[in-house]
Amino acid sequence: MDQLLIKSLKTLVGEKNVFDSFEDCFCYTYDASFSKIDKKNTPGIIVFPETTEQVSAVMKFAYEHKITVIPRGAGSNVSGGTLSLPECIIMVLTKMNKILEIDRENLLAVVETGVKTGQLQQEVEKIGLFYPPDPASLAFATIGGNVAESAGGPRGVKYGTTKDYVLGLEIVLPTGEIINTGGRVIKNVTGYNLTQLFTGSEGTLGIITKVVLKLVPKPEAKKTMLAIFNKIETAGQAVSGIIAQGIIPTTIELLDDVYIKNIEEYAHVGFPLDAEAVLLIEVDGDEELLEKQVRKIEKVCKEIGAREVRIAQNEQEADELWTARRAAFASCARLKPTIIGEDATVPRSEIPAMIKRIREIAARYNVLIAVVGHAGDGNLHATFLCDEIDKEEMSRVEKAIDETFYAALELKGTLSGEHGIGRAKAPFIKQQIGEDGYRVMKKIKLALDPENLLNPGVMFGE
Amino acid sequence: MDQLLIKSLKTLVGEKNVFDSFEDCFCYTYDASFSKIDKKNTPGIIVFPETTEQVSAVMKFAYEHKITVIPRGAGSNVSGGTLSLPECIIMVLTKMNKILEIDRENLLAVVETGVKTGQLQQEVEKIGLFYPPDPASLAFATIGGNVAESAGGPRGVKYGTTKDYVLGLEIVLPTGEIINTGGRVIKNVTGYNLTQLFTGSEGTLGIITKVVLKLVPKPEAKKTMLAIFNKIETAGQAVSGIIAQGIIPTTIELLDDVYIKNIEEYAHVGFPLDAEAVLLIEVDGDEELLEKQVRKIEKVCKEIGAREVRIAQNEQEADELWTARRAAFASCARLKPTIIGEDATVPRSEIPAMIKRIREIAARYNVLIAVVGHAGDGNLHATFLCDEIDKEEMSRVEKAIDETFYAALELKGTLSGEHGIGRAKAPFIKQQIGEDGYRVMKKIKLALDPENLLNPGVMFGE
Repeated sequence: MDQLLIKSLKTLVGEKNVFDSFEDCFCYTYDASFSKIDKKNTPGIIVFPETTEQVSAVMKFAYEHKITVIPRGAGSNVSGGTLSLPECIIMVLTKMNKILEIDRENLLAVVETGVKTGQLQQEVEKIGLFYPPDPASLAFATIGGNVAESAGGPRGVKYGTTKDYVLGLEIVLPTGEIINTGGRVIKNVTGYNLTQLFTGSEGTLGIITKVVLKLVPKPEAKKTMLAIFNKIETAGQAVSGIIAQGIIPTTIELLDDVYIKNIEEYAHVGFPLDAEAVLLIEVDGDEELLEKQVRKIEKVCKEIGAREVRIAQNEQEADELWTARRAAFASCARLKPTIIGEDATVPRSEIPAMIKRIREIAARYNVLIAVVGHAGDGNLHATFLCDEIDKEEMSRVEKAIDETFYAALELKGTLSGEHGIGRAKAPFIKQQIGEDGYRVMKKIKLALDPENLLNPGVMFGE
Repeated sequence: MDQLLIKSLKTLVGEKNVFDSFEDCFCYTYDASFSKIDKKNTPGIIVFPETTEQVSAVMKFAYEHKITVIPRGAGSNVSGGTLSLPECIIMVLTKMNKILEIDRENLLAVVETGVKTGQLQQEVEKIGLFYPPDPASLAFATIGGNVAESAGGPRGVKYGTTKDYVLGLEIVLPTGEIINTGGRVIKNVTGYNLTQLFTGSEGTLGIITKVVLKLVPKPEAKKTMLAIFNKIETAGQAVSGIIAQGIIPTTIELLDDVYIKNIEEYAHVGFPLDAEAVLLIEVDGDEELLEKQVRKIEKVCKEIGAREVRIAQNEQEADELWTARRAAFASCARLKPTIIGEDATVPRSEIPAMIKRIREIAARYNVLIAVVGHAGDGNLHATFLCDEIDKEEMSRVEKAIDETFYAALELKGTLSGEHGIGRAKAPFIKQQIGEDGYRVMKKIKLALDPENLLNPGVMFGE
């Protein structure tokens, strides 16, 4: 990047809030997505604004000089939403990390964009409140990143996802103006729902600088159970069976045999090595009510064909099961060096059909695909275990991934349940939303970012 | 309207689906909002399309001939969202009224836009499911209208509003193309959240023709109670007190002394004539849990200063209380001929402050303002009781309404919690969303409707 531009940017955000060496910039070429690092995409500068006014000043400067800007939280997204472009400004928002307010009476929190999700959860739980969204990355991911990606997580079944907790936003537009959307009330129909338009816009419409989040009372208690199945299709059927009882559990996680074996060898929690699938189910709420729900779930799982249902007897046993679940991806890293976790999602009733399709695809292309996922909302993560330096294998893997997307769409599902489109799935988006839907999105993008400078290519693939 | 245009439109939707006499057209100059009927605004034609393709054909035709189109369900909105413009096409969508599907396994329904909200509720409740949004107009309002206005209702406290149940939409764009947004899954982050952009867009961005709605299991039981207060401020405080117990009731409705007296004289349900306020509280869910919640609510209301808490002993007693609540507006019609119900909304903790402001405004302008509302979510309905032929009084009422809006905004609230902006509140929208926020909305409008033909003036006031 031109030294004069660098000097100006240093004036805008302060010398200490800028990286401009090649080595530092190179570190920001990647995110948590599977993608080959390309030297040509080294950014021109990394800026760490500390205030909304600095974000605005950088955007105005970028617009004046037609420089691409890519906003970034922790870079933990897995869809290539924060991959760099050559000579761009990477705007890292992790220094804007204050919890500004926790309002007990109105059940809301106001936070700066760079607050870590897990940190917010801990703070609100201390005073009996609860922020349910729980993406796997919550220990390091930022709220701003979660909002930009509309992040999900296991608790989506009962509690919904990030979008369901965003009441209001402070946003810096691509052209630098600062706007506030929504507010501090649950009911709010003044004007277009810009809050939800910006939520999940993957950094392409504006930079989120502040977030008003809805909180809920912390559930009194929770119960965890493990249902074990000889056939994975039966596990899929049990998911609908539980919901049909009128029970919406907090989570219904499915793990297939590949995951069961690898997790057990790694975490030793007593997973049955000969089972084809397990469901890890949690319910929360009133303590007395939970006992009733656990019994109902146990009954329906057994009726549908579970060979065993284990109920965690105390918090420690429950924690062990959840630690095992969270180790899923890590445990598979021993099998193959490259792990690509997709998140094509289907209606809950289509889980058995989708699992069947995934197995057929795996067989057809001779690719190892494991299945883990938030089965309660149909959000399966087909996990492609491969080796990226094996070109021949990777060409088969790519075809298998494409077919997984098409299978989900055929079953009336969606390309992405919670990971986002980013650069990774941009080539497929028209398949789902159609040419006319694509044009509507593009028109909105151009209306707000006429020079296409803010995270260009993400979602649209151009 | 030109006879050739009328002839063409008859060809597009069929002769039987058109009204073009002055008398018929005049009937579509109004909606449920307070507004003077103006002869000059008589529409040119009323069309009743029966299919999405007909809606699309009419929009294409309108675009070609630059004719204004105003879509309309039951016309029950109270913000002037469906008032006519001179020589426009009014598109009434009530003939597209089929429930296409109720999917028990995936907890969703697919309906045409003209299905009545109450009808859908009855159908899904027959099979143990529940569609919570309950605007006062549910017996005749349409789902499409509810989605266009993002309608609310008493159950918003616990269950949210219409927007929280819209999973997907079929929309005809202003330029006639048909798009599908969202889908049949709860987790879906493919592209911008167009579903939520169109929800609450008040017929300005597209015409909703089909809706995929989320359903939930029907609660096992419910309990209704009435808390009686000598001071309305104490009732306001009790609302926050209940929530602080970690209980989110289904509804917390507040009625002030004007309403209490008028309802009692009209409905005879035993409302205490000397009380300054009552809270009508309902909880639902597991039967055993309800008993516990009712006891907790009773305790906290008494601690905060309720002079009495009555618990409905059976369904009939509960129904009587709710019938009384629903009669609120009707009961006041005896006092004054013109009733203007506003819905400026404040954060829950500001209810006592907002009530104080409303009383001050009433005194300052010597205007009769009654207060009823969904206190659990801060969504108060200040009701202006007046006589529209009394010009002098009306000028005071108008000033009092303006000040009510400003009071809500000062208390970090919103102009509209659930009624929408329409033509009635359009002059105030910039006060809340700012010049830059307004420009963002306008850019989106123009990107999708470059000729400003679809419901022009609504929300933007130009």
